[in-house]
Amino acid sequence: MEISRRDALAGAAALAAAPMLAANDAKAAAPIVDKQAPSFYRYKVGDIEVTVVSDGRFTFPLEDSFILNARKDEINAALEKAFLPRDVFTIYFAPLVINTGGKLVVIDTGNGPVAKVNNKGSNGLLVENMVAAGFDPKAVDMVVISHFHTDHVNGLLAADGTPAFPNAEVLVPAAEWKFWMDDGEMSRAPAGRMQGLFKNNRNIFDAALKRKVTPYEWNKEVAPGLLAVETIGHTPGHTSYVLSSGSGKVFIQSDVTNNPNPFATHPGWHAFFDQDADMAEKTRRRIYDMVVAEKLLVQAFHYPFPGLAHLEKDGDGYRVVPMPWNPTI
Amino acid sequence: MEISRRDALAGAAALAAAPMLAANDAKAAAPIVDKQAPSFYRYKVGDIEVTVVSDGRFTFPLEDSFILNARKDEINAALEKAFLPRDVFTIYFAPLVINTGGKLVVIDTGNGPVAKVNNKGSNGLLVENMVAAGFDPKAVDMVVISHFHTDHVNGLLAADGTPAFPNAEVLVPAAEWKFWMDDGEMSRAPAGRMQGLFKNNRNIFDAALKRKVTPYEWNKEVAPGLLAVETIGHTPGHTSYVLSSGSGKVFIQSDVTNNPNPFATHPGWHAFFDQDADMAEKTRRRIYDMVVAEKLLVQAFHYPFPGLAHLEKDGDGYRVVPMPWNPTI
Repeated sequence: MEISRRDALAGAAALAAAPMLAANDAKAAAPIVDKQAPSFYRYKVGDIEVTVVSDGRFTFPLEDSFILNARKDEINAALEKAFLPRDVFTIYFAPLVINTGGKLVVIDTGNGPVAKVNNKGSNGLLVENMVAAGFDPKAVDMVVISHFHTDHVNGLLAADGTPAFPNAEVLVPAAEWKFWMDDGEMSRAPAGRMQGLFKNNRNIFDAALKRKVTPYEWNKEVAPGLLAVETIGHTPGHTSYVLSSGSGKVFIQSDVTNNPNPFATHPGWHAFFDQDADMAEKTRRRIYDMVVAEKLLVQAFHYPFPGLAHLEKDGDGYRVVPMPWNPTI
Repeated sequence: MEISRRDALAGAAALAAAPMLAANDAKAAAPIVDKQAPSFYRYKVGDIEVTVVSDGRFTFPLEDSFILNARKDEINAALEKAFLPRDVFTIYFAPLVINTGGKLVVIDTGNGPVAKVNNKGSNGLLVENMVAAGFDPKAVDMVVISHFHTDHVNGLLAADGTPAFPNAEVLVPAAEWKFWMDDGEMSRAPAGRMQGLFKNNRNIFDAALKRKVTPYEWNKEVAPGLLAVETIGHTPGHTSYVLSSGSGKVFIQSDVTNNPNPFATHPGWHAFFDQDADMAEKTRRRIYDMVVAEKLLVQAFHYPFPGLAHLEKDGDGYRVVPMPWNPTI
């Protein structure tokens, strides 16, 4: 719109105002847009259509406490080797919208509208980018949650605290549900971050959703073509998925690793957000060795958008090889 | 729009037509979209805003003649190592729109609207994706051409044969202009592909543009912040660019390599489209060694979208490390 107004002005008013300039020079400069493309990306897995929808990113100063068993200079060295800036860390968030042909399924919901405001629009963008991709949140049939961390569950609620996907059944891992809803676990949880997570989950699932959720078990389909797989450690009920249709297959890893630099390249590094860090590492190595052996495609919540990649073994770690972006389906 | 209509229907007509179904089951399934996101991507280089705009892709059977000094089984092995399908090859095309604050500059124009029809929408998408990114082709001030191959110049013309960027000055490398407009060179060119290229260039620059172009020299700015750099071999006047503003700098390589798999990983492989293959290899190694030593960001026309990456040395070749997608500027 701005461009058309500018063109109209350039023809008349601008020329009149600057009569000494040649017509070409009188054209106002095109405005700097300063806004990224709505970040969504589509691909097919057999007959199933996947749309990766970015919820944005979170960039924060690198603290000594970020990785429990690596020094800041070691982390910085790993970041620099990956051509990333030192002393800061960026986490990306990529929920999925999966159309099975019969059901519209959202997997994980991002940081939600409160984070969008608090973080000045750098995350909490799922719904905005879903709408840009042509999806109406009201049309979502199922929301499948991989685990109960804020960047996966907070998007369950709209800005007014009502369900963001009002017509959707909310499916949660049975083990995750049991842990976070257990009053004993909550009472024993350390103050600070863990107590905060318990409170957040009670706010969402108790107060807002009135416990209207469907717990699901591992090794069963939670939606057509979507098999739930146990990948615990990051949380007690952390779940990944195998999505398959026809000859197509993708391993949806959730948080088996976070940003691959440095967590795929250094699978032995324990981030503070892995609740059982030893188990999380064991799961990470087991899953990535399987993915490498089977040459499986991986779709990862925390890889840089669109987060679709193969993995190869590289020394003690793994190198992520992003799938080429397909500009036409 | 379809979604709103569907919701309206689901409430009344659909329920009436299928009274035996529960309300939830009566909701029609969301349609499979089967269309990729408009593929554009923005980033800043100092004060300059770059928008990478995909022109699409071209996928074709891998012929023995595709690489002159590598056997098809060697090429297939390189493709499989990169998790790419064997026996086919995909070329990606990524023109740029650069807003210097004063000038809107397009670098290379893609395959053009005729290719879009012939290739069933798989390429020739520059204008369509530019419009999706908010650019009016009439607002373009300058079109800078890196070299005179069809996937770089054919988008200079609209479907009706008139200039696609009617208000833009067209800037071409002086050496490239001299070669392709030289009647002696044309008469000595081999039949087939090279004669076809000469004819195509005469059609565009003579017949359609009436030779209204501005030849530019190397080691000079062709637009504010955009320095032209000699990178010959691929063609006699093949040009790359250094784009800089403030502390920001990107090396815009044009066709120093094509798809990095296998041409960055195997810089000694000579594709049929490198006019002087020995010189092209020499340039490729010279430029990539410089890029590695200076840790320069590379923007590449034929890398998978968005084609912004760092390079690292890997044996005799180079590994491309894509920049993480920034979902918010």
